[in-house]
Amino acid sequence: MATIRVFPQPWAARAAAKREDTLNKIRAEWRLSTTDLVKAEKQRDLTGPFIQQFLHDDEISIISKDSVQLVEDIKNAKLTAVQVTSAFCKTAAIAHQINNCLHEIFFDQALERAAWLDDQFSKNQSTVGPLHGLPISLKDQLHVKGVDTTMGYIGWIGRNFGSDPEQAHKIESQINTELLSLGAVLYCKTSLPQTLLFGETKNNLVGETLNPNNQNLSAGGSSGGEGALQALRGSTLGLGTDIGGSVRIPAAFNGIYSLKPTPERLSYRAVANNNPGENTYRSTIGILSTSLGGLNLLLQADLSCKPWLKDPSVVPIPFREDVLKEYEARANPDGTANGTIPLKFGVLWTDGVVQPHPPITRGLNMVVEAIRSAGHKIVDWNPPAQEVGRAIHLAFLKADGAYDIHSQLNLSGEPLIPDLRKSFKLREPMNLLKYQDLTLQGLKYEADYSDYWNSTAEQDGQIVDAVIMPVAPHAAVIPGKYYHTGYTQVINLLNYSVVVIPVTKADRLIDTVDSSYEPLNDLDRMNWEAYDPEMYDGGPVGLQIIARKFEEEKVLSIAKIVVSAMETSKAGAKGTVTREGNQIARGA
Amino acid sequence: MATIRVFPQPWAARAAAKREDTLNKIRAEWRLSTTDLVKAEKQRDLTGPFIQQFLHDDEISIISKDSVQLVEDIKNAKLTAVQVTSAFCKTAAIAHQINNCLHEIFFDQALERAAWLDDQFSKNQSTVGPLHGLPISLKDQLHVKGVDTTMGYIGWIGRNFGSDPEQAHKIESQINTELLSLGAVLYCKTSLPQTLLFGETKNNLVGETLNPNNQNLSAGGSSGGEGALQALRGSTLGLGTDIGGSVRIPAAFNGIYSLKPTPERLSYRAVANNNPGENTYRSTIGILSTSLGGLNLLLQADLSCKPWLKDPSVVPIPFREDVLKEYEARANPDGTANGTIPLKFGVLWTDGVVQPHPPITRGLNMVVEAIRSAGHKIVDWNPPAQEVGRAIHLAFLKADGAYDIHSQLNLSGEPLIPDLRKSFKLREPMNLLKYQDLTLQGLKYEADYSDYWNSTAEQDGQIVDAVIMPVAPHAAVIPGKYYHTGYTQVINLLNYSVVVIPVTKADRLIDTVDSSYEPLNDLDRMNWEAYDPEMYDGGPVGLQIIARKFEEEKVLSIAKIVVSAMETSKAGAKGTVTREGNQIARGA
Repeated sequence: MATIRVFPQPWAARAAAKREDTLNKIRAEWRLSTTDLVKAEKQRDLTGPFIQQFLHDDEISIISKDSVQLVEDIKNAKLTAVQVTSAFCKTAAIAHQINNCLHEIFFDQALERAAWLDDQFSKNQSTVGPLHGLPISLKDQLHVKGVDTTMGYIGWIGRNFGSDPEQAHKIESQINTELLSLGAVLYCKTSLPQTLLFGETKNNLVGETLNPNNQNLSAGGSSGGEGALQALRGSTLGLGTDIGGSVRIPAAFNGIYSLKPTPERLSYRAVANNNPGENTYRSTIGILSTSLGGLNLLLQADLSCKPWLKDPSVVPIPFREDVLKEYEARANPDGTANGTIPLKFGVLWTDGVVQPHPPITRGLNMVVEAIRSAGHKIVDWNPPAQEVGRAIHLAFLKADGAYDIHSQLNLSGEPLIPDLRKSFKLREPMNLLKYQDLTLQGLKYEADYSDYWNSTAEQDGQIVDAVIMPVAPHAAVIPGKYYHTGYTQVINLLNYSVVVIPVTKADRLIDTVDSSYEPLNDLDRMNWEAYDPEMYDGGPVGLQIIARKFEEEKVLSIAKIVVSAMETSKAGAKGTVTREGNQIARGA
Repeated sequence: MATIRVFPQPWAARAAAKREDTLNKIRAEWRLSTTDLVKAEKQRDLTGPFIQQFLHDDEISIISKDSVQLVEDIKNAKLTAVQVTSAFCKTAAIAHQINNCLHEIFFDQALERAAWLDDQFSKNQSTVGPLHGLPISLKDQLHVKGVDTTMGYIGWIGRNFGSDPEQAHKIESQINTELLSLGAVLYCKTSLPQTLLFGETKNNLVGETLNPNNQNLSAGGSSGGEGALQALRGSTLGLGTDIGGSVRIPAAFNGIYSLKPTPERLSYRAVANNNPGENTYRSTIGILSTSLGGLNLLLQADLSCKPWLKDPSVVPIPFREDVLKEYEARANPDGTANGTIPLKFGVLWTDGVVQPHPPITRGLNMVVEAIRSAGHKIVDWNPPAQEVGRAIHLAFLKADGAYDIHSQLNLSGEPLIPDLRKSFKLREPMNLLKYQDLTLQGLKYEADYSDYWNSTAEQDGQIVDAVIMPVAPHAAVIPGKYYHTGYTQVINLLNYSVVVIPVTKADRLIDTVDSSYEPLNDLDRMNWEAYDPEMYDGGPVGLQIIARKFEEEKVLSIAKIVVSAMETSKAGAKGTVTREGNQIARGA
């Protein structure tokens, strides 16, 4: 531990003090011994049995349930809010100690609220709302009263965006107010990368969050701490944000689910952000969960608050149960086509820039086989060059010449982390005329992509319902080797709605190197050469299921059919090579 | 007529040739004599009896109906599409000759289509769609195949945005494709101001469009030609666009109705625009009509095409009949409160920058009295300083330093019209960091305004349903004296949905000058001194009824209640001073 000087503190000391302060918020009986911490450091896979060794059976029973089961059990008085909250606080405490995935801990606040909720429940014999007693974790962009929001910036510790300390800790993000009104319990905030614009989870405040499924790899993406926490079952449901893949990458890399809605479906009001003045391509609030049911639960509950009445940026579209049902009616409960019109899927095998590693391609094949066996239609997806979309999107993210990032860094004097020194060097902002021209290019790309989507009806009269594509070209990622974020970024340019589902895990025995592959370009070569079956073994494979703008209910419904079809396919498969750990969790 | 040289043509000659060409598209029997033209020039009010002298009784009968009646009559075989189209083409032809309100005439195309529609109708004994046979006029930003879109720019004559003539006339705006699929007949395009950013209707192509109700005044605003054409009943329904008041100003100035939806409710795809790369505050497609029923008809019909499937910028909100009914249920058919919760209105008497002229204030009083007598609630509206919103919005419109405008002018060498030489002088574009800061200011203003709106529930638990405010501080405007467009611009910054209704007309006998008024500032003084009861006599007074984002159905429904309440109030008024011409037309 670094020596802490009270004043003035250099940035590193301020960060160390903050880390120490966070650890001190963990009660003594939840602290791990040095022996255990050393053991954890050497452990490849921290999930399941490893973390469970620190928990009691009743705690394991609670954290093994998904969000929907938890609220049901509390509603039916099988569990109390305090029991549930305690179990998740303890698990999150252990997760943080072995995985470094939290920025903020406010378990005391959470347990106090849980007790209040139990009290309300026993008084009124009814829940406060549909999220009664459910612990929800938050990416450290969301403001909670009484708690820091640092977004990884040292200069924001104890200060609201680095401003007057007197003004700190007074803000609550609108969506948090909504969650609380629905009965949720907020208890911790999860780690993220400096700038938010990085596919790994690393900053000067807490350092790095590795992948709990395989510590050779990164937790991944800008809601990486959230993904890692959920992989360790220290949470079943959390909020993140997504500007270039930030709720999709961590879901895919950690074997969980996420929903990236179209921006302006959920409230971003009073949520901290990188360069919020860049509002042409907006970051969106997203949901991560250990189950599909969790995603649906949060979306439906939150929209019942009519967030558009208090946040004028939100489009007034209530939760559309009818859309959910409309797609549900297209398949049997086991995912098989039911004699109505089968679903039609596009599959993007590669974006033509960077070929996915073998585990990802195998994952695509598994999904395609399952969908096809279930009687749905599959066509190849050949949209307008994804690389064009990626380049436009990246230009927007960099348009301010990293001015905002450097303003925040300058508050404390902390430097850019080495990985980002080149990308976010301070530069001249883009000329406005160029910016406006870029806007036109973005709109044109969006229109072209939409036209392509509509053109899928030309052959059989049926428009593709959803598209399956990789989240990234690798199953999680070896730190330092995330070369291409095009698979997620293009979807941000299009503002589409996406569900990520876990599909399988990298398997060194199956996913061997294909040394005959001829890379398409230097980037593709770098990525291809970075594939190491041994290192990646156990890395989760998740895929994107993509629908169009504001089609959140539709894509949730379709994802459920896909997951069901995969389970059916798996149950029916005989003689297929499978290994332990390749099972897919099915949400409610 | 200027001499026309074939090549090279200076811009003025090209404009003259284009004007001549347009006039030549009017068939001989619809051409007016020089005597009539001179008579028209001297006539203060061209509407009603004046223009009707050039029409036959059966034509007058047709053009006196509103859009809803027309489609009903065609559907019930009381009229043919050809009869209706002929009557409107002829009226539009005369309107253009006396009022200079058209850019494009394509009556032949229209009549051919009308004949086809009649043929379909007699073959199938059913209409092609809900707009079967209805002539719809278009602001000259909307593309029609085979026809110029000049937007007033000489350089665009015969060229698609000034580009290769080979590529001209091939585009059709998506919304036009939708209207055609619904059975509409397109027949003419209406005049607009150079740059679109001007409260009067003037360009180098056709010159000026004056107000047909009172030729001392301007037709007003950037859909001014459309407003004038409808005042002359050369159309019952038309499309315009609105970036700062462009469908509201001409509606108010011409005694008709308009709907400015939230941008992204209707398709703007393949519609020409000023500086389309400025997409932070977007122009919106709006509807102008001689009746409320016309607005409703077009909105509902167009949304039945699901425009979002082909235009990814459109938000997928279908027409919400339930919302319409929900508000309808709040009043009796005569507009009076019916024992459910009465409606609650805010009234903005002044924006604190420029005090409206006496006719406008009287109009506000008339509406307030009618609403109050009908049993609904009225409160004063004191939102965040409108001037702040206006300044932010204006900065966006000027952010590119008029680069786009000058690029278009340079195609032909035409100059800015004198009125705009100062405002749109070519300047350095805004710095992007400043632009992004301005974006944050805009978002903050929007959030503050929304908070204020919600705060109206503090006293009685009821949030204001809609706000009544001026469109402009004058009843139409004396050319050169439009000093303040804040009343409309702020609403564009907020992206609210608005219906404009006609209320009364300026009356020199009632709306006398209040010489005791102390102007608030220099701008207010200029505006106040510009009021001349004699000049303004007969100038229409329209007002804005404002609801929040994407509340088009709600605001249409509320507007209907307001209009009914005003009729009821008028019918009940005894001994009140009224003059001929102060009647309000009521839409279906």
